[in-house]
Amino acid sequence: MKFSKIPSATITRLSLYSRSLEELYHNDVKVIASDKLAQKCGVNPAQVRKDLAYFGEFGVRGVGYFVKELLFEIKKILGLNKRWKMALVGIGNLGSALVAHENFPKQGYEFVAVFDIDPAKVGHRLPSGQKIYHVDEMSRLISEQEVEIGVIATPANQAQNAARALIDAGVKAILNFAPIQIQVPEGFIIENVDFTVKLDNLAYHLTMEVV
Amino acid sequence: MKFSKIPSATITRLSLYSRSLEELYHNDVKVIASDKLAQKCGVNPAQVRKDLAYFGEFGVRGVGYFVKELLFEIKKILGLNKRWKMALVGIGNLGSALVAHENFPKQGYEFVAVFDIDPAKVGHRLPSGQKIYHVDEMSRLISEQEVEIGVIATPANQAQNAARALIDAGVKAILNFAPIQIQVPEGFIIENVDFTVKLDNLAYHLTMEVV
Repeated sequence: MKFSKIPSATITRLSLYSRSLEELYHNDVKVIASDKLAQKCGVNPAQVRKDLAYFGEFGVRGVGYFVKELLFEIKKILGLNKRWKMALVGIGNLGSALVAHENFPKQGYEFVAVFDIDPAKVGHRLPSGQKIYHVDEMSRLISEQEVEIGVIATPANQAQNAARALIDAGVKAILNFAPIQIQVPEGFIIENVDFTVKLDNLAYHLTMEVV
Repeated sequence: MKFSKIPSATITRLSLYSRSLEELYHNDVKVIASDKLAQKCGVNPAQVRKDLAYFGEFGVRGVGYFVKELLFEIKKILGLNKRWKMALVGIGNLGSALVAHENFPKQGYEFVAVFDIDPAKVGHRLPSGQKIYHVDEMSRLISEQEVEIGVIATPANQAQNAARALIDAGVKAILNFAPIQIQVPEGFIIENVDFTVKLDNLAYHLTMEVV
């Protein structure tokens, strides 16, 4: 099954729907009206219906969506009905924050390996339990641990090397936090996290307000 | 001037265009074809034209966009032709990474005040120069420094208090990194950063590949 024409904005919204549905599920809500779900996620109701329509028919007219069922379906679509094993490269302040962040395990993402090149760090164990390995051991550990996703939290000038090592070691996708555009082979899956893009959104709204 | 009907995805893409144009500008590129700019940003050319059309007429048919001019216009639209002063609440690993992150000053965002409640941290000065103040001094400092944006990097259970203090102190917008939905007054501008949403995108693509 290939859904090649699904806009990436739809996938991002599916993530948001799943977060809201998760919360509703934990609060024991069984059914939610399409309008209410839309409102909770900050999108318009037509958009919710359009996004879901790519993947099938969900919900009952005049009733709404069954929370548990829709959550299950969305998680299946996103591939979140399994645990994803991740390796982190670069255990500075940002890397430490990521490894300790409670949202990752909660959403099914697990850091099973942590790498750095700093001799002062290599060999130590993190409060979250992982031992810090030298990047020279990446190939062996990523294969042994069946890591699929690499996360880069190195300084900018080491990010390209980190990416090359991760790709050589066999990861299938990379999430990059370093403030640099990383070159990857054609077709390789990479996402960049740029905190300032969110700030531009705030700046735009603040500017519009006073004009 | 109010652009109330501009989709937020358009604003996010304008950020990406400005990043690419900035790079082109620094590499002394004077003119770029619409298709090339689109490709560089990973969107389709029609989308670029549609996004820009909300704000006026840009580019010359058969020639493309003048890099410097378009960059200037997009920065004006986004409100990036000024420096934005920010206050950080919570100087743990994540907060320290944010304050040290080179992308913020590069894009015009400056942390001018840093707050925490930990007596072991308050009073110390960060490598980047800011002194750490107790949140009790927030109201005075945010007013004195004319801070407009508050950034929350506290643990989840302190994020709501941090938001309340920031709003009381007079910030106009909040960027929240804590893994919790913060309640703000109707109409107040808040953006949440959830790292796992990007991972869901990777997971989706990895899942689709093997199905």
